[in-house]
Amino acid sequence: MIPDTLSYGQYETVYNFLSLVIASQLFTAVFLLISLPRILPRYRQAITVAIIVCGIAAYHYFRIFDSFKSAFVTTSVGGTGDYSQATGAAFNEGYRYVDWLLTVPLLLVELVAVLALARSVQSKLLMRLVPAAGLMIALGYPGEISGDNGVRGLFGILSTIPFAYILFVLFVQLSKSLANQPASVRGTLGRLRFLLLLSWGVYPIAYLLPLLNIAGSDAWVLKQAGYSIADIVAKAVYALIIFHVAKLKSYDDDHAFADVELSLDDRRPVVAAPRD
Amino acid sequence: MIPDTLSYGQYETVYNFLSLVIASQLFTAVFLLISLPRILPRYRQAITVAIIVCGIAAYHYFRIFDSFKSAFVTTSVGGTGDYSQATGAAFNEGYRYVDWLLTVPLLLVELVAVLALARSVQSKLLMRLVPAAGLMIALGYPGEISGDNGVRGLFGILSTIPFAYILFVLFVQLSKSLANQPASVRGTLGRLRFLLLLSWGVYPIAYLLPLLNIAGSDAWVLKQAGYSIADIVAKAVYALIIFHVAKLKSYDDDHAFADVELSLDDRRPVVAAPRD
Repeated sequence: MIPDTLSYGQYETVYNFLSLVIASQLFTAVFLLISLPRILPRYRQAITVAIIVCGIAAYHYFRIFDSFKSAFVTTSVGGTGDYSQATGAAFNEGYRYVDWLLTVPLLLVELVAVLALARSVQSKLLMRLVPAAGLMIALGYPGEISGDNGVRGLFGILSTIPFAYILFVLFVQLSKSLANQPASVRGTLGRLRFLLLLSWGVYPIAYLLPLLNIAGSDAWVLKQAGYSIADIVAKAVYALIIFHVAKLKSYDDDHAFADVELSLDDRRPVVAAPRD
Repeated sequence: MIPDTLSYGQYETVYNFLSLVIASQLFTAVFLLISLPRILPRYRQAITVAIIVCGIAAYHYFRIFDSFKSAFVTTSVGGTGDYSQATGAAFNEGYRYVDWLLTVPLLLVELVAVLALARSVQSKLLMRLVPAAGLMIALGYPGEISGDNGVRGLFGILSTIPFAYILFVLFVQLSKSLANQPASVRGTLGRLRFLLLLSWGVYPIAYLLPLLNIAGSDAWVLKQAGYSIADIVAKAVYALIIFHVAKLKSYDDDHAFADVELSLDDRRPVVAAPRD
């Protein structure tokens, strides 16, 4: 799967994408950490989980980046020639699975936590979503590390079952809970599920490439870029939207809090909405 | 004990498990650090100790990871061939004992601290549990580093005596204190002792493998994976459960605090439970 040789341009592309992911995840985490006091305590669990997810992703991309740098080397002066696989150093794609095993269940925790549902409803949802997410990743791994297309296809299908179940919970069972959310965030939360579906959809496509006989260094570079963009959208962009929802809900819950945070022009007239 | 050669798959498995432990411990510590203000001050000692335990474990796993990377090397291009023990670099298993010597007594401090017992009761429990935990680890070490099965067996038995004493304190003497805990956490705390027993049970099993003549690279990889999972459960998962208990007890102690933290749906009706 891993190409023997990358051109200088291909090497630089992967290098820059991996670095872009580190910067995006790390500084989304820092932004959210600084912003934590700017939402009400009941939404801080969701944002704390978001910080952890982005932090874990940044950690793993540091590892992937280091692994990539030692896996491909060049002997050209100035380093603008071809890069070949180095002696004694493999590019470790397994880090991605370790990352997903931790972060994918947490992404669902984030979504459920920001809804701030009654505790009984919340734990019922999480008892379904978290094990399904863990199972989905764990079932993908044996296929990913197998060189055999049959094994890859089999575990691909097995892994799709928990994925379909997650979608069922999000799009059918969660809909009742969404209907009770404040009007200001209902639309955003509905669209957030599609963002999740769209960004998570990149992973099975990349997984299927070997089955479609798409190989070679261009396909591999494209896969690394695809994973990078998907990870930025599914974790950092997703976290920022969750933070936006938490902010709007905080304003909705507590008008005095909103008045302190909002622009003077946005403050609600005192008569129309008495502080509670 | 340490195999001369690992296949690429075995090497990757150990490598990814060690990294998984680093990520789990490090980000559990970060999560708890961020969440510290979200429990009442009287429970923050327990969570502070939990942060320290996960931090110490992350530190030692960084060391174990580095030690593993320099202990096993390959000469194959792309690094997908066999990995053999390197010249001049031993895999340092002793780090685990240094880690346990510090963290195992602290795990018991964590458990006792979250109970928030009267100070006299608490110090009486800790005066028993902490020295016993230190003794248990210290007695295991001479057996672990000895190549002789007789010595290993002898120190294994000696180390079991303080372990049995810890179980006696937890399951007999602590039961009275548990009965006085709020109903909302009594079940969780009871089950927490079994989690501790279950995860700590992995260590003596791994310790006994050489006595049972189970050797070879597969057994060694399994042992590393077992230690890794046991360390995640005994420290990170354990810490998150302790945090959950601290949260529930905080809500129970202070209804006004609970109202700020909880979902609007979970707020107690003002009439039924006046804020205190």
